[in-house]
This record gives sequence, structure tokens and C-alpha cells, in this order.
Amino acid sequence: MTSGTDAPRPPGRPRSVRADEAIVEATLDLLAEGSTIETISVEAIAARAGVGKATIYRRWPGKNALLHDALRTLKGDPPQPAGRSVREDLITLVSAIGQHIDPRAAKIMPCLVPVVKRDPEQYALYQNIIGPRRAVMREVLRRGVHDGELRADLDIEVAMAMLTGPMLIQRVMNWNPDLDATTLPEKVVDQVLAGIAAR
Amino acid sequence: MTSGTDAPRPPGRPRSVRADEAIVEATLDLLAEGSTIETISVEAIAARAGVGKATIYRRWPGKNALLHDALRTLKGDPPQPAGRSVREDLITLVSAIGQHIDPRAAKIMPCLVPVVKRDPEQYALYQNIIGPRRAVMREVLRRGVHDGELRADLDIEVAMAMLTGPMLIQRVMNWNPDLDATTLPEKVVDQVLAGIAAR
Repeated sequence: MTSGTDAPRPPGRPRSVRADEAIVEATLDLLAEGSTIETISVEAIAARAGVGKATIYRRWPGKNALLHDALRTLKGDPPQPAGRSVREDLITLVSAIGQHIDPRAAKIMPCLVPVVKRDPEQYALYQNIIGPRRAVMREVLRRGVHDGELRADLDIEVAMAMLTGPMLIQRVMNWNPDLDATTLPEKVVDQVLAGIAAR
Repeated sequence: MTSGTDAPRPPGRPRSVRADEAIVEATLDLLAEGSTIETISVEAIAARAGVGKATIYRRWPGKNALLHDALRTLKGDPPQPAGRSVREDLITLVSAIGQHIDPRAAKIMPCLVPVVKRDPEQYALYQNIIGPRRAVMREVLRRGVHDGELRADLDIEVAMAMLTGPMLIQRVMNWNPDLDATTLPEKVVDQVLAGIAAR
């Protein structure tokens, strides 16, 4: 470990990474406490993170770019399915829906909804965050059709909604107290695969 | 029309009904403008409605009872399916999901979510509002199993989530820009009935 100065080096990651993290964390804290993506300001984020506004603008061109990175951090990376069978991959993907590691997500994500519906720029931001997850599921379904595991005439976008919707309303809204979110992924996948009509 | 006084009778419904409506409307306006079911107060509702607090407490035992009635008014009555076939009834019910006549609902309902998840009393209120709609769909599915249109081993609660989830995330969250909410009910019902697996 070499250092150009005699000052003790702070432990852990370099200062610039810690500043980035502090800014992202401050953004998420403010959103979880009730700021909306419309009302939150770079000033308030800077104050909360203990940095100057210039520090934020050196790293992000504007508020929306920062919000995008903060919300991506909150959501984490999309899960990567193992690719052994469509059923197994879908259970992996459906299990990850609404399964946020960060408890602030449960407060932030639902209230994004009214905002993104009235502001096209915010809607684009929201789609940038959830789009990559949809893309992973779309690929699994396409592969299933290609390999003959799924119906050739499958409407893939509709199937994605059939797989995602149940978990999202149960995990995010606690929609039905008679459903257990931990066993729901496997049940949804199996019932979506088999259909509910009598043979 | 007889009246005990010489004062001109206001047109339309009696005064007490108009006061009830004004109170309910004031509650919904405040919620749509950003009050939450936790932060909204009987004082604020009374001021907005132009009535005294005593007028509210004469009609409702407390804030939660008023919120319950206001949110029920917002949601409207559950749709009544015609009962000709399971497919037709499910399309009727799925089409009604997230189809609020009142535009305030789109602002109020999503932000209920974080509140109802941390407060059991508010969760009960929320379930009182959405429960009757689930009950109508459950009855259609039970009838379908009984009549042999649906699989005998159907998991009805899971099927309800498969039918409701796609419409709810699309109508409430604009989840996927590549899905058309107007054609989605029929597509979801048909694909849920048939399943997505190859035969």
C-alpha cells in the first residue's frame, strides 16, 4: 500500500466511491421518507449527503440521471436464470419479483406510479429500471417457444404479465391475505404452464 | 312536495345527503392531493367540506369508518357477471380491474400500499374495499370447477391472482408499454384458460 501523503488513508473504498454511495443513499432515504421523484431536489440530496451541489453535478448531468442510478441500485441486478428448463428458469425469475433486499423499495416503488403516469420523462426512467428484468423473462419464454416447450402461438408479452402480475400484486400490495408469497412462484408457474381449463 | 317552512327548498337531494357527499368528496380530494390515510385528519376534512367536526362524528364513529366509506365510493360496486360462461364472466371481471371511473383513484390507490403494509388496521380497511371484488371472481371460478369447465384440482386463489395481476399492473402501473390494456382482458383470460405449455 503506497500513499503520497502522510495523512492516514481512510479505511475502505476511495473517497470518490464513498461520495457516490453517500449521494445515492441520501437520494433513496429522501424518497423513502416521502419525497417524490418530482419534488426531490439536488439541493436536498446534497444537504442530506453532506456534499456540495457541484459534487453531484460533477458525477451526474442532472437529477433524472441520478434518480436513474439510485433506483437501479435499489432494484439490484436482474436475476440470471440457470437455463436448464423453462419451468425452473421461470420459477427463479418469478421468485425474484418484488423481492427487494432494500426495505426502502417497498415505500418508494408504489408511489412512483402516479408520477410516472403523468410525466413521460419519468415514465421512461421507470421503464429503464424495470425493462431489463422483463427482457430476461422474455428471453426465457422465446427460448421455450423455440425449443418446443411452450406453445408456438404464445403471446409472450401477455405471458410475461401473467407470470409477473400475481407476484407483484402479492408482494407489493399484500393483495390477498389467503396467498402465501413464498409458495406462490412455483404455483403460478405451474398453473400458467398448464392452464386452468378442464381438458 | 310539502315543506314545513317557507324557505325555498334547495334543489336535488336532502341536505343530509348533500353533507355526506361533501364530506366524502372532501376526503377523496385531500387523498388525491397527497394526504395519506395516516396523515389525513377529521379537522382537515371538515374544513374542506365546509362543515363542523361534529357533523362528521354524527355520521361516522371515526376517521377509519369515513375512510372506508370514501374509498368504497371511489371503487364503486363490484361488477356483476352475466353468468353465461366462465370465459365470458372472467372477461367481464378482468375488464373492470383498475378501470376506475374516478380519476382520483389512480392517485390514491397506489400510495395506499406502503401504509396498509405497516398498519394492521389500515390493512383491514384496504381488504374490506378490495375483498368484495375478489369474492365475485372466486364465485365464478368455483362455479366453473363445479360445472366441469375448469380443472377439478384448480388452485382458485392462485388463479385469481393470475387473472387479476396482469390487468392491475398494466392499468395501475403502465407496466409494459408493449401491452394494450383494452385487448388485454380477453388475451389474459384465454391464455390463462389454455395455459402456455405446448401440448
